[in-house]
Amino acid sequence: MSAHAFDEAIALAQQPDGSFLGRTSAAYANFIGPYGGITAAQMIQAVLQHPARQGEPVAFTVNFAAAVAEGEFTIEAVPARTNRSTQHWMVRMLQQGEVVTTATLMTASRRETWGLVEAAMPQVPEPSDVPRQPLPHRPVAWLERYERRFIEGDLPREWKGQDSGHSRTRLWLRDAPERPVDFVSLTAMADNFFPRLWLRRATQVALGTVTMTVYFHADTAVLQSTGSGFLLAQAQGQGFRHGYLDQEGLLWNQSGELLASTTQLMYFKE
Amino acid sequence: MSAHAFDEAIALAQQPDGSFLGRTSAAYANFIGPYGGITAAQMIQAVLQHPARQGEPVAFTVNFAAAVAEGEFTIEAVPARTNRSTQHWMVRMLQQGEVVTTATLMTASRRETWGLVEAAMPQVPEPSDVPRQPLPHRPVAWLERYERRFIEGDLPREWKGQDSGHSRTRLWLRDAPERPVDFVSLTAMADNFFPRLWLRRATQVALGTVTMTVYFHADTAVLQSTGSGFLLAQAQGQGFRHGYLDQEGLLWNQSGELLASTTQLMYFKE
Repeated sequence: MSAHAFDEAIALAQQPDGSFLGRTSAAYANFIGPYGGITAAQMIQAVLQHPARQGEPVAFTVNFAAAVAEGEFTIEAVPARTNRSTQHWMVRMLQQGEVVTTATLMTASRRETWGLVEAAMPQVPEPSDVPRQPLPHRPVAWLERYERRFIEGDLPREWKGQDSGHSRTRLWLRDAPERPVDFVSLTAMADNFFPRLWLRRATQVALGTVTMTVYFHADTAVLQSTGSGFLLAQAQGQGFRHGYLDQEGLLWNQSGELLASTTQLMYFKE
Repeated sequence: MSAHAFDEAIALAQQPDGSFLGRTSAAYANFIGPYGGITAAQMIQAVLQHPARQGEPVAFTVNFAAAVAEGEFTIEAVPARTNRSTQHWMVRMLQQGEVVTTATLMTASRRETWGLVEAAMPQVPEPSDVPRQPLPHRPVAWLERYERRFIEGDLPREWKGQDSGHSRTRLWLRDAPERPVDFVSLTAMADNFFPRLWLRRATQVALGTVTMTVYFHADTAVLQSTGSGFLLAQAQGQGFRHGYLDQEGLLWNQSGELLASTTQLMYFKE
C-alpha cells in the first residue's frame, strides 16, 4: 500500500545541523506555487518531529512571507522558551538561503478541565444528504486532495460582480482519499476555504493568504475519536479594505466538538 | 506638559547592537506582572522604531512565553523577509538572556482598493448615554489607564458560578486620559477585554493570555480621523476546553469603520 499523498507531502528529513529538509509536493500544487495549507502543515510538522518538542500543538501562526518555489526547502525550528508544561517555537522555512515562511507555535501538555463549546455547530444536513462538489474545470492539484460537500456559500455560479450580501461558507470536508485527522492535517484543512472576496463580490481578483492563525481546541484523544470522519468547516470575512481582507473560521467534527478556530488575512489586487 | 503614561510605557532606546532597551511600566501593571496589551505594544513599537522598517502594520501575533519580570527588558526585531511592498518581522523580548515574549509582524504599504465592512458595527447607544464603569475595589494600575462604558457583558455582579449563556461583551473604550489612537495603542486595546471565562461562568479562576493576533484594517489616515474618539470593542469566546479558551474580537471607531479584528487564546486553571 502506498503512502497517503498528505504524508508524502509533509515528509521531512532532519539534517546533521538540526534543520529539516523537505520538498514541495506536486499533489498539493495550487495555481501558482504550493497550497498554503500544505506549507503550514510542513512548518508544524517540523516542530512535531523535533526531538526537543514537548506537548501537543495549542496555538499556531504561519506567515507566508514569499512565494515558495518548486523544489527543496529547509525548515529551522527553534524552541525559544521551554516552561514546565508549555513550549514556544519560532520556525522559518528557507529556500536558497532566503526566508520564505515564518511561524510561531505553542505546544503544551493538556489536562482535563471544565469546558463547553460556545460557538455551537450549526444545524446542517448530514454529509450523505449534501452533494459532493465536482472538481473544477481547470485542474488544480490540491483541490483534488479534499472531498467537499457545500451546504452554503459555494463558489458563485456567475462572475458578474453582484454583491452576495455576505461571505459565509459552510461545508463538509475531509481528505480524499480518507485519512484520520491529526494536528498536521487539521492545520492544512484550516486553509481550505476559497477566498471570501470571490464569494462576496463574485469577482475573481488575484489574491493570496499572507498569514493564518490556528487555535487547537482538540487534543489527541478527540482527534482520534474523530478519525477520518467529515469536519464541518465554516468561514466568513469581516473586513475588506486597502488590499487586505480577513476571515474567521471554525472546524467541528460530526459530534459537534470544536476542533479548531482559525483566522487568516489575505491580500488582494485592485 | 508631561508625556502620556502610554508613551512613557512604550519608550524604547536602540542599543549599539541594534536591539531595543525598555522597562516595564508601573502605570500598566496587572495583578501579576505587566498588562499583556502593554507588552504587545512594546513588541510592535520596537519594529516601528527600527530603521529598516517599511510600511505600516498589517498583521501581528504576540506570544506570551513567560512572565515578564518588573524591570528592564531587551527587544530584538529582525526583518526575516523584505519584499517590494511587504516586510515580515520576527521579534523576541528577553530578560536575563531568556526569551519571555515572541512575535511576528507583517508590515506593508497600503493602497486604495474596493472595500466594505462585513462585520458591521452593531446598533448601540452613544458613549454619552452609557455610564462609565467605576474603577475596581482592588487597585489594578492598568485598569485605570482606560475609560470603559459597558453596553453588554460587564463583569458578573455575583460570582456564584451561574452560566450566563454567552460570553459576549460590547463596550465603548478609550485611553484615560485621552490620546489619539495609533497602531501601537490599538494593539494594546485589542487585549483590553476581561477573561471570557469569568463572564460565561461567573467564576474567577486564575488565567492569562498566551497568544494574541491582531489584523489592522485601518491605515494611518483612518486612525488619524478616529483621533481620541471612543472605539466600540466587542469580544466573545468560542471554545473552552482542557485549560484553554479562545476569544474573537472586533474594534470599530464611532463612524463604524473596522479598525482591527483580533483573536486570542488564554490558559485557565481549575
